[in-house]
Amino acid sequence: MQVTGHSLIGSQAVYPQGATIQAFNPATGAPIGPEYGGGGIDEVDRACALAEAAAVAFRTTSLEARARFLETVATEIEALGDALIERCMLESGLPRARLEGERGRTCGQLRLFASVVRSGEWLDVRIDPAMPERQPLPRLDLRLQNIALGPVAVFGASNFPLAFSVAGGDTASAFAAGCPVIVKAHSAHPGTSELVGRAIQAAVSSCGLPEGVFSLLFGAGNDLGTALVKDARIKAVGFTGSRSGGTALMKVAQARPQPIPVYAEMSSINPVFLLPDALDSRGKTIAEGFVASLAMGAGQFCTNPGLVIAVRGTALDHFVDAAAQAVAKVGAQTMLSPGIHASYNAGVGVLAGHAKVRQAGHGAAAEGACQCQARVFVTSAADFLSDQALQNEVFGAASLVVECEDWAEVARVAQSLEGQLTATLQMDDGDLEKARQLLPILEEKAGRVLANSWPTGVEVCHAMVHGGPFPATSDARSTSVGSAAIQRFLRPVCYQNLPQALLPDALRDGNPSGVSRLVDGKRMTTA
Amino acid sequence: MQVTGHSLIGSQAVYPQGATIQAFNPATGAPIGPEYGGGGIDEVDRACALAEAAAVAFRTTSLEARARFLETVATEIEALGDALIERCMLESGLPRARLEGERGRTCGQLRLFASVVRSGEWLDVRIDPAMPERQPLPRLDLRLQNIALGPVAVFGASNFPLAFSVAGGDTASAFAAGCPVIVKAHSAHPGTSELVGRAIQAAVSSCGLPEGVFSLLFGAGNDLGTALVKDARIKAVGFTGSRSGGTALMKVAQARPQPIPVYAEMSSINPVFLLPDALDSRGKTIAEGFVASLAMGAGQFCTNPGLVIAVRGTALDHFVDAAAQAVAKVGAQTMLSPGIHASYNAGVGVLAGHAKVRQAGHGAAAEGACQCQARVFVTSAADFLSDQALQNEVFGAASLVVECEDWAEVARVAQSLEGQLTATLQMDDGDLEKARQLLPILEEKAGRVLANSWPTGVEVCHAMVHGGPFPATSDARSTSVGSAAIQRFLRPVCYQNLPQALLPDALRDGNPSGVSRLVDGKRMTTA
Repeated sequence: MQVTGHSLIGSQAVYPQGATIQAFNPATGAPIGPEYGGGGIDEVDRACALAEAAAVAFRTTSLEARARFLETVATEIEALGDALIERCMLESGLPRARLEGERGRTCGQLRLFASVVRSGEWLDVRIDPAMPERQPLPRLDLRLQNIALGPVAVFGASNFPLAFSVAGGDTASAFAAGCPVIVKAHSAHPGTSELVGRAIQAAVSSCGLPEGVFSLLFGAGNDLGTALVKDARIKAVGFTGSRSGGTALMKVAQARPQPIPVYAEMSSINPVFLLPDALDSRGKTIAEGFVASLAMGAGQFCTNPGLVIAVRGTALDHFVDAAAQAVAKVGAQTMLSPGIHASYNAGVGVLAGHAKVRQAGHGAAAEGACQCQARVFVTSAADFLSDQALQNEVFGAASLVVECEDWAEVARVAQSLEGQLTATLQMDDGDLEKARQLLPILEEKAGRVLANSWPTGVEVCHAMVHGGPFPATSDARSTSVGSAAIQRFLRPVCYQNLPQALLPDALRDGNPSGVSRLVDGKRMTTA
Repeated sequence: MQVTGHSLIGSQAVYPQGATIQAFNPATGAPIGPEYGGGGIDEVDRACALAEAAAVAFRTTSLEARARFLETVATEIEALGDALIERCMLESGLPRARLEGERGRTCGQLRLFASVVRSGEWLDVRIDPAMPERQPLPRLDLRLQNIALGPVAVFGASNFPLAFSVAGGDTASAFAAGCPVIVKAHSAHPGTSELVGRAIQAAVSSCGLPEGVFSLLFGAGNDLGTALVKDARIKAVGFTGSRSGGTALMKVAQARPQPIPVYAEMSSINPVFLLPDALDSRGKTIAEGFVASLAMGAGQFCTNPGLVIAVRGTALDHFVDAAAQAVAKVGAQTMLSPGIHASYNAGVGVLAGHAKVRQAGHGAAAEGACQCQARVFVTSAADFLSDQALQNEVFGAASLVVECEDWAEVARVAQSLEGQLTATLQMDDGDLEKARQLLPILEEKAGRVLANSWPTGVEVCHAMVHGGPFPATSDARSTSVGSAAIQRFLRPVCYQNLPQALLPDALRDGNPSGVSRLVDGKRMTTA
């Protein structure tokens, strides 16, 4: 399949006449054709009209039909073959192995959601049968299930051009919930976006679904995205990107006549706590694991360990030395885009020029156009606590070690942190009591708490939380990775005294859908 | 127990020095002592400090301990005896039988949440065991459970001075989730609030919980409530009241450095659709049921049927005549407060003076200070569709019948509606196809869809949804009545590779809490 530069609106490919979008090879700075015609209010209107028209039919498909659609999307993406990988390498600068792995993750994620849809757990079915003889008043028959919110706007991220983009976790979970999706393509990988978009378009068609289930729009600047979030037919927003971008969309969504939920995954520095026994017994090993996690993928992960916290002393000095030695072996890596590269250098510049921060080590110097140099900095807890700016995310392979005077100061630093995606404990058996003291703080700061592992490499499974308090995300009650992500796009509806013929399948007597149900508050796997 | 006019901050009773709050007997306009000292920023600060200090201890109580606390609150409220009912009658003008029923509902609700806490379904436990041999990468042990959001601010309603107030559904569900609660008392029933607050305070003490689990503040005007929602230690808000009040709190919460969820239940006109066969066969019976639902409690229910929609014709004329005859028998009833009474008269005045609206019938004229006269108005669908103001809620016993030219216009009226708590179908077997056409629209407009019943009388159970799209509530994903209300005050946390000793009980091997768990995506009642 060739890329053509078209937007996809329902079953059509169109070429809007707005300002064009063009990809660039981050390794060389060279432009990559074709140019994509930027859409505007007209394209938003057409895509939203189709999405609205498709919404009821799509949300009321059978569990099996919706699961098969998700599986078909995965098959169609795989059918794109090497063309997808090659285009994505060109546009992202990411290596082949990483992108092949990411494609596997993307398709695995779609298939996981197919199994989630079939299981029906997400329906949260509850049945309180009628009690006609109850005194003083009878109880009528009451049944509850979740239904899809309606059309969802998805804004993909540049750092996972497959797994967090056009057919990424937001799209997969919204489809699973039964929501039509309109994707605003990330301008850093338009060709990758078009290829994946065409795969979804083909799946919509071959599954006999209404065309409005999916559209893919391109737009330079923020106007198209803002218009999409403002449109009354859009009922929720999924976003992965910067704090400024996410909070801007939150404001737009809240200012609508009918406000809607925004699920923005934005900013996290992912603190790692080195507990004393672990630091003493295996500081060097931890330092090597830390630098490996820090430098992976040029540090361009939301869960990159950007902060390390421990008590000052010889053991911490040895850790910092070992980290400096490890980071010295890190080669320069090409970043995803000139914008990300410039932001990284600016963030590193602030740390390097900060009077209270010293550089402990660095990787190989940058050579190519968009290359980054890994960095490890050190500061004191007192200085960290007195300057909120030291908590700002530096997206890339830079981290800050915070030296505390004592254990109480470690807890104060933990308490001072903003919301995070992750918080990590490096601990030995003898650290259990200290870990127990920190745990309640970390639970309130982060969506995921880890021990003796590293936050990068987010598992796609049922128990994953890739979320956390603001500013990690806009909604701490949600996750954007794993099967619980489907809950973001659902709302409960209660059906009181409805004839069987009007009830959704999962609520009917005899449980024809075979889903787990809560009957009078008791869990029944079949009822 | 005597009322004293004090605010309750943790275990203390204090008398702040701000502008005082005084109750009035709505039937006579006479003031009722004592005066309550209005709190301000100092009281908010003290209550929030105690709530924050109590948060971890309270959220990590055992399921059994938290359930017993909820049951103790119910017992303590019952122990207030007739003093509570008499004070509440004085302050609200509501009759004894209604308030005794509401007390039963309030205590039943607390005990329902005790059973919900014990069941542990709300924890949403998910376990994805380690797969050390998996290729290309091993999977680490991942476990998820919900935890409490943190301290919650609750704003009670005047129309349910027990069931939606100090120990109402918001407080009960927040306690069940493990959140400390700070209630801003409704100024219409301060004595009732104090009595119930002292019952909760006694339960906190006798259960050995930290005092910050509960505080009760009084404040004239909006300043205290605004300060409470702005406080960084508050993590969620529950509100029942007006659209203007709810949207004001939403704005305050969104403008915080760390935005928080607001669950505001605000405004609904609860459309009732009369389908043709039902209208033909039993229009008079439906009219009598409609007026009974409309006039109950002076119409002061969020689920009051404020809109009736049907196709014009002889059958509808007969319905309107029968409704007019039924409403003529409705006596004048005392409303809850001079403010509500004035709003009702203003809303009725707009309809009565509207050029496109005619009055079809009315109840007995008002006599006492705060009495309301029930009203039924009629307009055409064309006029209804052309004037958005006709959708405004008139809180009280007034309803508007909308006459449509044909069935297609019924669907257009349904489509034009704002979000609702409820939508009702009055239907016979022959109406099934028409009901099927309306149902997808009503599911998207309302949190609860009813057939052949009336929206007033909200059952407190597992399958209830007392919620719906904006402006019915600020968050269509939630319910404020029924056991699912607990979900509003929770967020998921994932624990990766943690030692057993650090895991919460519900996540440990062997399932010591005995809760239902999702293991590798499969529902296990014990595992």
